[in-house]
Amino acid sequence: MSDPLRLGIAGLGTVGVGVVKLLTANSDAITRRCGRPVEITAVSARNREKYRGVDLKPYAWEDDPVALAGRNDVDVVVELVGGSDGPAKALVETALSAGMHVVTANKALLAVHGTALAKTADATGAALAYEAAIAGGIPIVKALREGLAGDRVTHLYGILNGTCNYILSEMRTTGRSFQDILADAQELGYAEADPTFDVEGIDAAHKLALLAALGFGREVNFDAVYTEGISKITPEDLIAAEELGYRIKLLGIACQTDHGIEQRVHPCMVPADSAIAPVEDVVNAVVVEADPLGQTVYEGRGAGEGPTASAVVADICDLARGNRSPVFGVPADALAAADDAPMAKRHGAYYLRLTVRDEAGVMSGVSSAMAEANVSIQSVLQRGRSTSEPVALLITTHETEEAAMMQAVDAIRGLGAVIGEPQVIRIEHF
Amino acid sequence: MSDPLRLGIAGLGTVGVGVVKLLTANSDAITRRCGRPVEITAVSARNREKYRGVDLKPYAWEDDPVALAGRNDVDVVVELVGGSDGPAKALVETALSAGMHVVTANKALLAVHGTALAKTADATGAALAYEAAIAGGIPIVKALREGLAGDRVTHLYGILNGTCNYILSEMRTTGRSFQDILADAQELGYAEADPTFDVEGIDAAHKLALLAALGFGREVNFDAVYTEGISKITPEDLIAAEELGYRIKLLGIACQTDHGIEQRVHPCMVPADSAIAPVEDVVNAVVVEADPLGQTVYEGRGAGEGPTASAVVADICDLARGNRSPVFGVPADALAAADDAPMAKRHGAYYLRLTVRDEAGVMSGVSSAMAEANVSIQSVLQRGRSTSEPVALLITTHETEEAAMMQAVDAIRGLGAVIGEPQVIRIEHF
Repeated sequence: MSDPLRLGIAGLGTVGVGVVKLLTANSDAITRRCGRPVEITAVSARNREKYRGVDLKPYAWEDDPVALAGRNDVDVVVELVGGSDGPAKALVETALSAGMHVVTANKALLAVHGTALAKTADATGAALAYEAAIAGGIPIVKALREGLAGDRVTHLYGILNGTCNYILSEMRTTGRSFQDILADAQELGYAEADPTFDVEGIDAAHKLALLAALGFGREVNFDAVYTEGISKITPEDLIAAEELGYRIKLLGIACQTDHGIEQRVHPCMVPADSAIAPVEDVVNAVVVEADPLGQTVYEGRGAGEGPTASAVVADICDLARGNRSPVFGVPADALAAADDAPMAKRHGAYYLRLTVRDEAGVMSGVSSAMAEANVSIQSVLQRGRSTSEPVALLITTHETEEAAMMQAVDAIRGLGAVIGEPQVIRIEHF
Repeated sequence: MSDPLRLGIAGLGTVGVGVVKLLTANSDAITRRCGRPVEITAVSARNREKYRGVDLKPYAWEDDPVALAGRNDVDVVVELVGGSDGPAKALVETALSAGMHVVTANKALLAVHGTALAKTADATGAALAYEAAIAGGIPIVKALREGLAGDRVTHLYGILNGTCNYILSEMRTTGRSFQDILADAQELGYAEADPTFDVEGIDAAHKLALLAALGFGREVNFDAVYTEGISKITPEDLIAAEELGYRIKLLGIACQTDHGIEQRVHPCMVPADSAIAPVEDVVNAVVVEADPLGQTVYEGRGAGEGPTASAVVADICDLARGNRSPVFGVPADALAAADDAPMAKRHGAYYLRLTVRDEAGVMSGVSSAMAEANVSIQSVLQRGRSTSEPVALLITTHETEEAAMMQAVDAIRGLGAVIGEPQVIRIEHF
């Protein structure tokens, strides 16, 4: 039997405790599978006194997580503190600089500092593993980095945030509003007290920036991700989507275009018969198009104690077996510079919902604005007829460029008969 | 730059040529990702003169594939000859015995000789990689062996044969017969001239035996797989399935039960809203239930040049990076003995279609036979009324044991009013 692999775990929230429990419960199987035991030697968290339902007495305690990186009885630092800066960053940087392997679930840290951290890791020969950071227990990092090592990825997209997918699923099946369902989700623990990171698409954008780096072998560039959340989606949009043969999903999309790599997170209408449409509730899914593999789809729970702990432990087992792959699939100094396509170049169809006064000339005003911007209308549907109440106008376009569509929307916004803000949802045909 | 990884490729059919093409086309990316070049040094096939659309001149030629294992300029033997015995087996055994790594797409060889080959590999320290053997380009071997290394698998099932899935999909949407669609599939190249291996479930059973070994860390036992194909499925069954809220799929299923591990391949009725139901045409899908991960689903093309070559090259890249995992997830001498649950213990619901003469007492005879065997009827539907023509009786049962159901079917077969062979399809509620 070889020497044990010794872990220092920082952060003992739901996931940290899940990792401790899983390593303990499956200890025999893990030893057999890795050919050596995996042991926790030290832990660190904010509050030593808090009862967490696991026995921490066998492990050394550090008040300062960064101290784990200085211990000579730790081979791998497991960073489950979270946050793009602060102690998480200090710990990961210190560990990697010292040549110590790091396993993390921290998408924010990697999305913001991923390229620099990969360079530090490569310089010292440390591993930086982060399966748990993207789509929880779905082994999508492994699939992209190793399973598709011979392929050329052309396009990837996915449902990367369970909270948003739960809210959209519930809105669709119950007809209730975003605010109502969000309140329910908060009560059920599916959404945070401050839901901004989830519902405004920031969490999904963190994950997408990492998937884009992995899939296309390029530097992480979170700042270039176009990000739009789901808070403006209404039950009316969901009904319209259904009638048009679509579902609304918050997707993260990264694809190779003539203008560079597009990275965007926003609500999408996707064909009801596409692979991603039936993925409901808190489930995550990632679709990868690659050459010569074709399309593969990966689906599973994207968050929570079990799936996240499973992914963290899988990364630990890789290290215990002595297996390593470059952080983003190629050595950090071979990563391509991030050549980001401007959002204005996005090519595709659009759904536009307008609230208008039902008066002569409205339709003509709208269609001239579209024609002037060179956007071709595919269908128009007016909901109801009323001389006193505003009515809804639902329009879909043929494929066009984002810049043209935005020009049309600007002009439409200025029309006298149009009330409030036009609703624009991009249609994705995969 | 490290030394190149040198390959000897045996078998230059569609997949072998696909591997040569892919290694050539993506050579730069592969070198970057692996940190070293991957080179072909020697090849072997039956006919040296055949034109294959790739330039083989740069590689040494061996008439005898086994000779590749004796070359000192080969680090990895890539076995794409196929077949459970003969030259494929001789080559793989010789290579592993010599401590030479093997990458293969050969499910038949591994299903029949997998445990012995894993022992040989472990004894000499050679790797035996076979991502391409199961579900083509879907990285399911990697997911089970590495991505779920911390988990306990409880249940796995999948659509493992694209030919059968194509035939069932086409039968459902066109209403045409098995024989008709099979003939089309043969013309399209989706089915072999002799389709037995595919349509009788043998190919799926090979793959299932490997998935069961991987998922449950046990010896491969292909002989214990209960195997039934799709040749007896009729358009009438597909219509009945739809009416009952099901789809018919040929599934491979492996699960932990109180009686051991169940391994079975047979047509199943699956709920129309289950994850696997919408997987149509030649697509493969595998669903894994694990603790604590929960359900994950993996979907993609299961066969063909591109997907299979992609999987073979991914295995090669693992070896080039120096990454290794035990053949079936644990060292061969730690594999559990194959404790197979008898098919008679299968627990679940059933669909039964009878052709009967429409006469008094038929229903009573059938229901007594069911009652006597302790099988509880959930629904009965008689199609049509006729004094001259036989009519169809469609029955679904509540959950029961296979042995009880077979006892009921035996008794029903003996009833005077029952014409021909009763059709039995198992219903799976996941």
